[in-house]
Amino acid sequence: MTEKEFRTWAPSAPMGWNSWDCFGASVTEGEVKANADYLAKHLKQFGYQYVVVDIQWYEPQANSSVYHQFADLAMDDQGRLIPATNRFPSAAEGHGFGPLAQYVHDLGLKFGIHIMRGIPRQAVAQNVTTAGGYSARDIAANNICPWNSDMYGLDMSTPGAQAYYDSLMALYASWGVDFIKCDDIADSKLYGMHRSEIAALRSAIDKTGRPIVLSLSPGPADINYGAFLQEHANMWRLTDDFWDTWRQLKGMFPVAAKWAPMVRAGNWPDPDMLPLGAIRQRSVDGGTKLPHTRFTVPEQKTMLTLWSLLRAPFFLGGDLPQTGDELALITNQAVLGMRQDITEAHEEAATDTLVTWQAQSAAHHYTAYFNIGEDEITVQAPAAPASELWDGTALTPDQPLTVPVHGVVLIEQQ
Amino acid sequence: MTEKEFRTWAPSAPMGWNSWDCFGASVTEGEVKANADYLAKHLKQFGYQYVVVDIQWYEPQANSSVYHQFADLAMDDQGRLIPATNRFPSAAEGHGFGPLAQYVHDLGLKFGIHIMRGIPRQAVAQNVTTAGGYSARDIAANNICPWNSDMYGLDMSTPGAQAYYDSLMALYASWGVDFIKCDDIADSKLYGMHRSEIAALRSAIDKTGRPIVLSLSPGPADINYGAFLQEHANMWRLTDDFWDTWRQLKGMFPVAAKWAPMVRAGNWPDPDMLPLGAIRQRSVDGGTKLPHTRFTVPEQKTMLTLWSLLRAPFFLGGDLPQTGDELALITNQAVLGMRQDITEAHEEAATDTLVTWQAQSAAHHYTAYFNIGEDEITVQAPAAPASELWDGTALTPDQPLTVPVHGVVLIEQQ
Amino acid sequence: MTEKEFRTWAPSAPMGWNSWDCFGASVTEGEVKANADYLAKHLKQFGYQYVVVDIQWYEPQANSSVYHQFADLAMDDQGRLIPATNRFPSAAEGHGFGPLAQYVHDLGLKFGIHIMRGIPRQAVAQNVTTAGGYSARDIAANNICPWNSDMYGLDMSTPGAQAYYDSLMALYASWGVDFIKCDDIADSKLYGMHRSEIAALRSAIDKTGRPIVLSLSPGPADINYGAFLQEHANMWRLTDDFWDTWRQLKGMFPVAAKWAPMVRAGNWPDPDMLPLGAIRQRSVDGGTKLPHTRFTVPEQKTMLTLWSLLRAPFFLGGDLPQTGDELALITNQAVLGMRQDITEAHEEAATDTLVTWQAQSAAHHYTAYFNIGEDEITVQAPAAPASELWDGTALTPDQPLTVPVHGVVLIEQQ
Amino acid sequence: MTEKEFRTWAPSAPMGWNSWDCFGASVTEGEVKANADYLAKHLKQFGYQYVVVDIQWYEPQANSSVYHQFADLAMDDQGRLIPATNRFPSAAEGHGFGPLAQYVHDLGLKFGIHIMRGIPRQAVAQNVTTAGGYSARDIAANNICPWNSDMYGLDMSTPGAQAYYDSLMALYASWGVDFIKCDDIADSKLYGMHRSEIAALRSAIDKTGRPIVLSLSPGPADINYGAFLQEHANMWRLTDDFWDTWRQLKGMFPVAAKWAPMVRAGNWPDPDMLPLGAIRQRSVDGGTKLPHTRFTVPEQKTMLTLWSLLRAPFFLGGDLPQTGDELALITNQAVLGMRQDITEAHEEAATDTLVTWQAQSAAHHYTAYFNIGEDEITVQAPAAPASELWDGTALTPDQPLTVPVHGVVLIEQQ
Repeated sequence: MTEKEFRTWAPSAPMGWNSWDCFGASVTEGEVKANADYLAKHLKQFGYQYVVVDIQWYEPQANSSVYHQFADLAMDDQGRLIPATNRFPSAAEGHGFGPLAQYVHDLGLKFGIHIMRGIPRQAVAQNVTTAGGYSARDIAANNICPWNSDMYGLDMSTPGAQAYYDSLMALYASWGVDFIKCDDIADSKLYGMHRSEIAALRSAIDKTGRPIVLSLSPGPADINYGAFLQEHANMWRLTDDFWDTWRQLKGMFPVAAKWAPMVRAGNWPDPDMLPLGAIRQRSVDGGTKLPHTRFTVPEQKTMLTLWSLLRAPFFLGGDLPQTGDELALITNQAVLGMRQDITEAHEEAATDTLVTWQAQSAAHHYTAYFNIGEDEITVQAPAAPASELWDGTALTPDQPLTVPVHGVVLIEQQ
Repeated sequence: MTEKEFRTWAPSAPMGWNSWDCFGASVTEGEVKANADYLAKHLKQFGYQYVVVDIQWYEPQANSSVYHQFADLAMDDQGRLIPATNRFPSAAEGHGFGPLAQYVHDLGLKFGIHIMRGIPRQAVAQNVTTAGGYSARDIAANNICPWNSDMYGLDMSTPGAQAYYDSLMALYASWGVDFIKCDDIADSKLYGMHRSEIAALRSAIDKTGRPIVLSLSPGPADINYGAFLQEHANMWRLTDDFWDTWRQLKGMFPVAAKWAPMVRAGNWPDPDMLPLGAIRQRSVDGGTKLPHTRFTVPEQKTMLTLWSLLRAPFFLGGDLPQTGDELALITNQAVLGMRQDITEAHEEAATDTLVTWQAQSAAHHYTAYFNIGEDEITVQAPAAPASELWDGTALTPDQPLTVPVHGVVLIEQQ
Repeated sequence: MTEKEFRTWAPSAPMGWNSWDCFGASVTEGEVKANADYLAKHLKQFGYQYVVVDIQWYEPQANSSVYHQFADLAMDDQGRLIPATNRFPSAAEGHGFGPLAQYVHDLGLKFGIHIMRGIPRQAVAQNVTTAGGYSARDIAANNICPWNSDMYGLDMSTPGAQAYYDSLMALYASWGVDFIKCDDIADSKLYGMHRSEIAALRSAIDKTGRPIVLSLSPGPADINYGAFLQEHANMWRLTDDFWDTWRQLKGMFPVAAKWAPMVRAGNWPDPDMLPLGAIRQRSVDGGTKLPHTRFTVPEQKTMLTLWSLLRAPFFLGGDLPQTGDELALITNQAVLGMRQDITEAHEEAATDTLVTWQAQSAAHHYTAYFNIGEDEITVQAPAAPASELWDGTALTPDQPLTVPVHGVVLIEQQ
Repeated sequence: MTEKEFRTWAPSAPMGWNSWDCFGASVTEGEVKANADYLAKHLKQFGYQYVVVDIQWYEPQANSSVYHQFADLAMDDQGRLIPATNRFPSAAEGHGFGPLAQYVHDLGLKFGIHIMRGIPRQAVAQNVTTAGGYSARDIAANNICPWNSDMYGLDMSTPGAQAYYDSLMALYASWGVDFIKCDDIADSKLYGMHRSEIAALRSAIDKTGRPIVLSLSPGPADINYGAFLQEHANMWRLTDDFWDTWRQLKGMFPVAAKWAPMVRAGNWPDPDMLPLGAIRQRSVDGGTKLPHTRFTVPEQKTMLTLWSLLRAPFFLGGDLPQTGDELALITNQAVLGMRQDITEAHEEAATDTLVTWQAQSAAHHYTAYFNIGEDEITVQAPAAPASELWDGTALTPDQPLTVPVHGVVLIEQQ
C-alpha cells in the first residue's frame, strides 16, 4: 500500500533493444520489426522483451542522429506528436503506433517509445487548443532543450499542463505503449532536473491504468534527487550518452559505485544502452564512423559484468539481425542469473588499476576484479571452492588468476 | 587609428531618459513625445539628450512591464521587428520609427531604441527569408532568453546571421536611430555573455555609417570580459535591473569600485537607470506599487554622487512631465561638472558603515564620504580650503561634518 | 561474509547522550557521571545506552564551546591526545578514560569519545616519534581544520600515518571506548570529505578487535559519497551543527528525504543531536544565551518524528539531570517502536506548507503530516481503522485532523 | 595628492632577475652576487635593475624547489624570519640581508626578497612575543598556505597583527630592501585573495618611508579585485607559476588581453618571470629536468612581445652568467622602447590560430600578429611605411609576411 505500484511494473531491470545506437533518429517500421523478430527468436528466452523506438519518430526527414533544427513534425490537432507515416506506414489513418505495438505484442514482446519533455514548438507557434480546451501558448513554459529544438517545456503551475500530459499518455496508452523513455528531463543541461514535469508524467501514466514503465533521460541524474527518482520513475540515466570507448566505460565505475545503494525492485539506475555489435548503421555518434562496436571482448565482458552487478537495464544498441559473436556474452546464463539473484552489490575497493566489487545472492557470494589499468594484473582465487562465472571454470583454491587489460574475472563462491 | 572610432560617438557618458522605469513595456508615442518635450525644455541645457524607447515597442498588446508569453509581434517581411502602430501611429505605412526620431531630432535631441538579441521566434516559426536570401531557420540558434519568449539567438557561424544583423541595423539607422540598447546579451542568465553576437552588432553598426551608440544589457557583465566590452560597446550594465531600494543602492558600491578602472572616454560601465520621480506609472517592477521613487533625498544624493564619480550614464527613469523636487538634484551644475571633469576616481576605503571615494580633475580634488550604515557618522573637513559640492557651502578647515544615514558629503578641494 | 562486520555493531540506530549541546568543549568527569547515572536510571530501558564525551577533553583550559586558538593540549609521548586530568581526575597516572569507561560500563551503558581528524599540531611542533618509529613531521599533512587549530591532517600515502591511527585506536580501545565521533572529516569545509583518512580509521578500528561504533562529523556529508560512507562508517552527519531553531528544523526535511534510501542496518545517516531540555549550560552556540531549548512542544514532536522516520540516531543534548517535560516525548514507546520496526520510509509529498512521509513495518503502515507553514492545517484520517501514535488516540475514519503550526500528526494503520 | 605615492616608486614596469627559475628555494649568497655582477655589467644599461632572492632564504636545508615540510627556519626573537647564515654568510651576527643589499646597491642595482604571508608556524609553536608585546598565538590566524607549511596567516582584526607586519617591513627596510614579493596572498588557493593582509602590507611599507616596490603572488589574481590591487600594490600575478611550455604561453593570451585595461604607471599586472636561458639549475619545477629553456626562438619572441605589449615586468629566470643567444632578444632596444613608450595596448582580434594586438605610442602605431596555431600563417604588411620591429627590416607596403609557428611579426608604423 505504501509501496508505489509502478515499481511492480518492472520487478527486474528491463531488457530489450533500442534503436538509437544503430539508427539514430531515423529508424523505420521495417527495421523495428526486423529487430523485434530477432529479439523474439533469439533473445526472448533470456529475458529480453522491450522493443524501443527512440527519438524523432515524428519527424519525416530524420535520416541520422543529427537533428534538423526547427524541423516540421507530425502532430495531431491537440498538439501531440504522432509517427511520421513515411517512416511508419502502419501509422497512417490515425493509427499511430497501434499497429506496430500490436506486431510487437504478437511476438510476446513489449513496445516502447521515446518522447521529449514538453509540448512541440510548432504547437506553440500554431497556438493549438490542447486537451481540456487550453491553448498551447498558455501551458507552455519559456524553456527549451539546448540540443534539440523541437519542444518547449510545460509550465506545471498552469491548469492545462497536467491535462496535456494526461492526454499524451492516454494516447500512447491507447496505442499499447509499454515503455516511455522521456528525454531532456533528468538532466536538462540548462535547468537541471525538471522535477515538476517528472511528477506530472508519473501522475499521467498512473491515470492511464496501463503499466507503462517510465525511463528518464539524459544523465547525469543528480543523486541528491535519487530519493525523488525512486518515488517517480523506474529508470533514470546515470551519465550522458554512453558509447563504445574505454574512457567512458572506465568512467562508469565510480558512477555505478555511488548509485548502487539506490537500486531496488522497480528502481533501476541506468548506465545507458549497451553499444555492442552493429551499432552506427545510420547513427553518426560515438566519435567514429565504424559500424561495429570498438569494445574488445574483455571490455565487453567488463561492461556486462558492471551492468549486471548494478542490476542495470540491458538495452542492446546494435542492429540485432547482424548480431555476431557478442551473442554468447549477452546470453550467458550464469551472468544473467547473477544479475537476477543478487540483492546487494557494492564497490569493495578501487585503485587506479584494480576495481573490486562484491555481491551476495541467497546461494552465492560474488567477487569481480576489474583491471582498469594498462597492464595485466594477477589476483588470487578464494581459498574456498569457487568458479569463474563467465567461463564456468572451476578454480583451484588460491590459484593465481590473470585479469586481462580492461577485462574482468568474475568469481562465484558458495 | 588604433582608437576605435565608435568610442568617439559617446565622448562623455550619455544622459537622457528611458521609458522602462515608468512605462515598462508599454510606452506610447504620445508619452515619448511628452517626455522628449520636457527633456528639451528643462534638461537639455544640462547635457541630457537621449530619448530611449525601451522593450516591446513591437508588441501591440503590451500594457505593463509583464511580458506576454509567445505574443504576436509586428514584423516586416525580412523578420525584423517594427513598431506596433496602435501604440506608435506615426509608424504606419512602413515608416517605422522614422517620424518619431525626426520629432526628437527636431527638439535637438537624440533617439534610441531597445532591441532583444537575435531573431523573432515568429520569424523562425514562419521561416521567413532574411536579408541576403537566407532562411530564418538556418540562421537562428536554438537558444533563448529565459525571461522573454520573443526571440531565438543567431548562430554567428552561419553566413546569413551577420547579414541579418546588418539588415537590422541598416533599417534602424534609416529611421534615424542614435542609440541601441541591446538586451539579453551582456549576461544572458542561461549562457553568460554572447560575445559573438556583440561582435556582430558592433560590425553591423559600423557598416551603417551612422554613429549609433551601443548599450548592452542586462548585467552583471563579467569583468573578465571588460576588455572585450571596451573594444565593442559604449555602455554595458554592471548589475541586473536597478530599482529604488537601499539594498540595491548599497550593493552598487563594490560593483562601482571594481569597474572604475575600466571607465574611459567612449566606454561607460552602466549601473542602470536612475529610478527617480514618477516611476512605475505602468511598470509593475521594483517590488512595490508605489508610483514614486522610494529613495529618500539623502539616498538620491548618494546615488547621483556614486554614478557621477563612476562617470556613469544618467538615464532618468521617471515620467518627466511629473518631475518634482528631484529636479534640483539632477541639474546640480557643480556635481554634473565634477562628473564631466574627473579623469580618475576610485574607492579609497570601505568599511561596513563608511565608504570613501576620491577623484581628481585638472583643477580639483574630490572626496566623497558615503554613510552606508544606519547611524549618523561624523567626518572631518580637510585642513585646506574646501567646499561641500551639493550645497556649495564653504567648509572651515577640519570642521566636523555630519553624514546622514544613507547619505553623502561630497567635498571639493583646490 | 560480504557483509561488513562493523555494521553489525550498530544493528539499530544508536541512542544516548552527548556532552556538546550542554557543556560545549568543557564537560567534566563529574558531569559525565551524573548524566550517565540519569541515563542508566531513566532512559536505558528505552534503548538509550551511549554516553559520549565531545571535543576538547584533552584541553585543560576549555571552558565553553569557544575554542582556544593554539592551546596546549594533554598528549602522550607518541603524540596521542589524552584526557586533561584537571577535568578528568580519574585519568591521572596514565589511566586515560579507562576508569570513566569502566564507570559507564558498570551502569550497563557504553562509552564514547570525540576525536579530531589527524595528529596534534603540537606533536608536529615537537616532532615526536609516533608509533612504529616514524616522526610526526613525516606523517603529518599540511592541511588543517578551519574552525579548530589543534590538529594537522595525516598524509595517508606515508607509511607511518596508518600506524599512527592504529596506535590511536588501540589506545582508545584499551580504555574501553565503544563509540568514536570523528570530526573535521565528513565535510572538512576546506577540503571536502577526507576519504583516505576515513578508510584509515575504518581499518584501524577493525584491527583493534573491539566493536567501536564510528560516527563521522561534521556535515553536510556529500551524498555522492553515500555508498562510500556505507562501506566505512556507522553514522555520518547530514548537516552542519543542528540547534533549536525552526529554520534549521524546517531545513532538515529535504535533507532527510534525500538520505532516506541510504538507511540500512548499521548505516545511520545522522541529523545530529537532539537539542532538548537543558542545553547551553556552558555551550554558547545556537545563537542565543537561553539555557533551555527554544523548540515548542509541537516542534519537539516534529523533530522526534522526522528523526524516527529516518531511523536516525537519538543523542540527547541537554543536561539529563535537569530533564523536564520532554521526558514523555523521548520515551514514547509507540514512537520509539515505530522507529525500530519500519524498514522503509520516504517523503511522499512536499509543498511549502505540508510535508508527508510514509513508512511501513511488518504490522503497520505509518503516515506523518508535518505542518511546516505558519497556519494550522487540516488533514483527513484514513478511511480504515487508525490511531494517532503520539497520543494513542483512536481515529474515526475520515475525521478531520488539525496539524498545529510546526507540528505533526502521526498516524498508524494496520 | 589623490595619487597613491607608492605608484611613483615603479614608474615603469620593473626589470631584473629572480632566483626561483634557476635555483628554486636554494639560492646562495655567491650565486646572488654572480647574477648581480652580470646584471650590472651586461643588462643594467637596458633597464634591468632588480636582484630578487626568492623563497626559503631563511631555511638552512633548502636544496631545490621542493619544500621541506615543517622545516626549522632561521628566525629572530620577534618571530621574524632572517637569512640562513649557512647560505648567506654575510647575514651572520644579526646583519640580515644588509650586507648583500649593500653589495647590490654598490653595483647601481636594487635588492629584493620574497616573503610568505603571515607569521612563522614555529613562532606560533614557541608563542614568541611579537612587536608591541603581543603573543604570536594571539595575532596568528588559523589559516595556512596549502603548498608550503612554514606560516600561519595573521588575524588583522587583532591589534598586534599590524604591529607585526610593521616590524617586519621595518626590519627589511633597515636592511635596504627595495622590492618585496609577497606570496600566498594574491590567490591563496584555499581562501582566495587575502585583502586585509594586502592592505596591512601596504600600510606597513608606507610607514617605513622606504620606497619598497610591492609584488603579490601567486596568481591567478581575481580581476574582480583589480581595482583593489591598483590601490595597494605595484605588481600582482596573473596566473599560477609560468614555465617554458607552449601550452602555458598560449594560455597567457586571453589573460593578458583581459588585464590590459588595468595597466597604468605604478600598477603592473604580472605574467610572471621569463623562463629563458639557464633555468632549472637546482629548481626541479616546470615538468622536465632540462637545464635550459624549452622555448624555441619564435616562442621566446612571442613571449617577449606579449609581455612588452602588456608593459609587464621583465624578470629573467635563468642563471645570468650562463646567458646565451637570448641576450640579443632581451636587449632588443626597439622592442624595449616600444614597451616603454606605449600608453594603450589591447587584443584587437583572436581566432584559434591568429591573435592580433595593437598599441599606440606618441610617435608610432604597433601591430603584432601572433601565430598560435600549428601551421605557418601569412599576413599582410600595412599599406603605409612600416618596419618589423624585432629585425628592424623595412617592409614593402602590402607585402606578404610569414608568421612562423608559435611566432610573431611585430610591425611599427609612423
